[in-house]
Amino acid sequence: MLKLEVALGERAYPILIGESLLSDGKTLPASISAQDILLVSNTTVAPLYADRVRDALQDRRVVDVRLPDGEQHKTLDNVSRVLDVLVANRFGRDSLVIALGGGVVGDLAGFSAACYQRGVAFAQLPTTLLSQVDSSVGGKTGVNHPGGKNLIGAFHQPRVVISDTATLRTLPARELRAGLAEVIKYALVFDVAFLGWLEQHLDDLLALDAAALAHAIYRSCELKAQVVLRDEHEQGERALLNFGHTFGHAIETATGYTEWLHGEAVAAGMLIAADMSSRLGLLPASDVQRVRLLLQRAGLAIDPPRMTASRAMQLMGVDKKVRAGRIRLVLLEALGRARFTADYPDDALAATLTEYFD
Amino acid sequence: MLKLEVALGERAYPILIGESLLSDGKTLPASISAQDILLVSNTTVAPLYADRVRDALQDRRVVDVRLPDGEQHKTLDNVSRVLDVLVANRFGRDSLVIALGGGVVGDLAGFSAACYQRGVAFAQLPTTLLSQVDSSVGGKTGVNHPGGKNLIGAFHQPRVVISDTATLRTLPARELRAGLAEVIKYALVFDVAFLGWLEQHLDDLLALDAAALAHAIYRSCELKAQVVLRDEHEQGERALLNFGHTFGHAIETATGYTEWLHGEAVAAGMLIAADMSSRLGLLPASDVQRVRLLLQRAGLAIDPPRMTASRAMQLMGVDKKVRAGRIRLVLLEALGRARFTADYPDDALAATLTEYFD
Repeated sequence: MLKLEVALGERAYPILIGESLLSDGKTLPASISAQDILLVSNTTVAPLYADRVRDALQDRRVVDVRLPDGEQHKTLDNVSRVLDVLVANRFGRDSLVIALGGGVVGDLAGFSAACYQRGVAFAQLPTTLLSQVDSSVGGKTGVNHPGGKNLIGAFHQPRVVISDTATLRTLPARELRAGLAEVIKYALVFDVAFLGWLEQHLDDLLALDAAALAHAIYRSCELKAQVVLRDEHEQGERALLNFGHTFGHAIETATGYTEWLHGEAVAAGMLIAADMSSRLGLLPASDVQRVRLLLQRAGLAIDPPRMTASRAMQLMGVDKKVRAGRIRLVLLEALGRARFTADYPDDALAATLTEYFD
Repeated sequence: MLKLEVALGERAYPILIGESLLSDGKTLPASISAQDILLVSNTTVAPLYADRVRDALQDRRVVDVRLPDGEQHKTLDNVSRVLDVLVANRFGRDSLVIALGGGVVGDLAGFSAACYQRGVAFAQLPTTLLSQVDSSVGGKTGVNHPGGKNLIGAFHQPRVVISDTATLRTLPARELRAGLAEVIKYALVFDVAFLGWLEQHLDDLLALDAAALAHAIYRSCELKAQVVLRDEHEQGERALLNFGHTFGHAIETATGYTEWLHGEAVAAGMLIAADMSSRLGLLPASDVQRVRLLLQRAGLAIDPPRMTASRAMQLMGVDKKVRAGRIRLVLLEALGRARFTADYPDDALAATLTEYFD
């Protein structure tokens, strides 16, 4: 088992990563001290793993909530439903909410925990690669609004994150690859040595080798934690984590958040951002090629949907990363180093968008 | 104008107290820098004061939300309504939510601000004495759940609080007196000299003398701030602020939160708590008499509703101040000094409850 301590002062917590941590009968009871536990999951994940969690915590009171599966259910109405269950069971301030599932469950359960009695403890048991490398660190919780994603939420740190790599065996291959997009993102933005490691071990990761998965998750969380610690409430540097996301956002919005997985859109967005970095002379074309090759091997080199550059720009414009009317972008200065900037010629952006979307 | 700085580190903010601060044309624009402002109010307060706020901020974009008046509207549904308006108007992270009204509006608008985009700024313009002395300090925001009051919420500090004592001229006299109950509470729990001042100036306060009101509000906020600063997230000492509230809670619950104003119930509860302190030999009977006399003069010596001691105890038991099955109480060790304790003989509690409720 690998253990990463996220050193957030009095809100510090450990991320535990390893094979079969949910079923080993000791990691869960040793990590969670609460007696009253609300287990929030969804109708896909609960039948696979809820019993393991219940068995491991058989000496506690565990109440179950199963939400329907899918991003469209990440709503304030479902938060209300979770809160109803907490109230109906008279859970006190010393209770704990477990999120068992992917990012939707984690975001919604975490926000419910943040709101209940002005904040009760919560624990994340992420069962997708994306949530293991992304939602585990940063304390962002929340739900969508018909007017935009994640518009309602809170910063609320978990008490513990337990990433059981065995749960990835039941994850659809497409979702595993989408999760790898975020892993690759950390390497591209922060750590060229990790990029080299990923190039070497990509086949192991796709084959679900436990040791390779654990290392990839550990290093991703570590890189994200370093940024979050320096910028907990997202004032500056944390924006670098949005590499590929602004372009990806245009793809997701254009396709109504249904056809493309988030990671797939981010992968396409990263390639576009790398290409634009190259057009600006920041990055050699050979490095763009290296990015493209790795994404291809991961099954992530997917052509964006066709649209005009101006339409893409418009879709990017509704993104939260807009300041004073001008789109700020995360660009690569080198493999493993990024910058967040509004300082680029408009025609370079237009040319890039035309190249990829038109 | 009096100015109290609540020194919460990077979340420090000023409380400005004085006559006609909403209409002087300078306090509001000088205190609020945001361009996009959501003004949350209710159908009672908005017709009286919303135009003053709009006029003072005429160079900003001010969008109005008016909620129905009353505690029963402090719901998650109305938070959702406020969030809808923020989204519909595309308010960004640099926008600000103003709460114009009493505690209900402040709690609901503050919680909406806490949740929108994981936290935007908010400003309190309290228009009741209770909210000027209570909700201005502490950062508690939230709404009720059918299963209990304030079960859903967040800690979210305002950027500024502006207490215009002129707004108290439109406040029903009964609500003014209920607000005075909380003022008297601060004196009883923390400051016997302030108690003496209140005894001297009670008539000025009831006559809405601006200078007397400003001092009473200032000192109440100062006393509360000192406690909150030492105990921001309500782990210990802050419990002293609940003096009178556990007994008062029994009254409010028994009467369905409709007949008694919160401050009235707290006033009755303070007298019961003082009496019990006296039974335990902590407080001389003459001090209980002094408390009773002051509450009488303020029009707050109201007989609790009739019920058995065991019923009262049961109603107190659902209160949040219960630990491990035993009711902890705030008792007076002297006028101006309190303790939070579960260490008292049960028969003293039973005798006190029988005296007042039976």
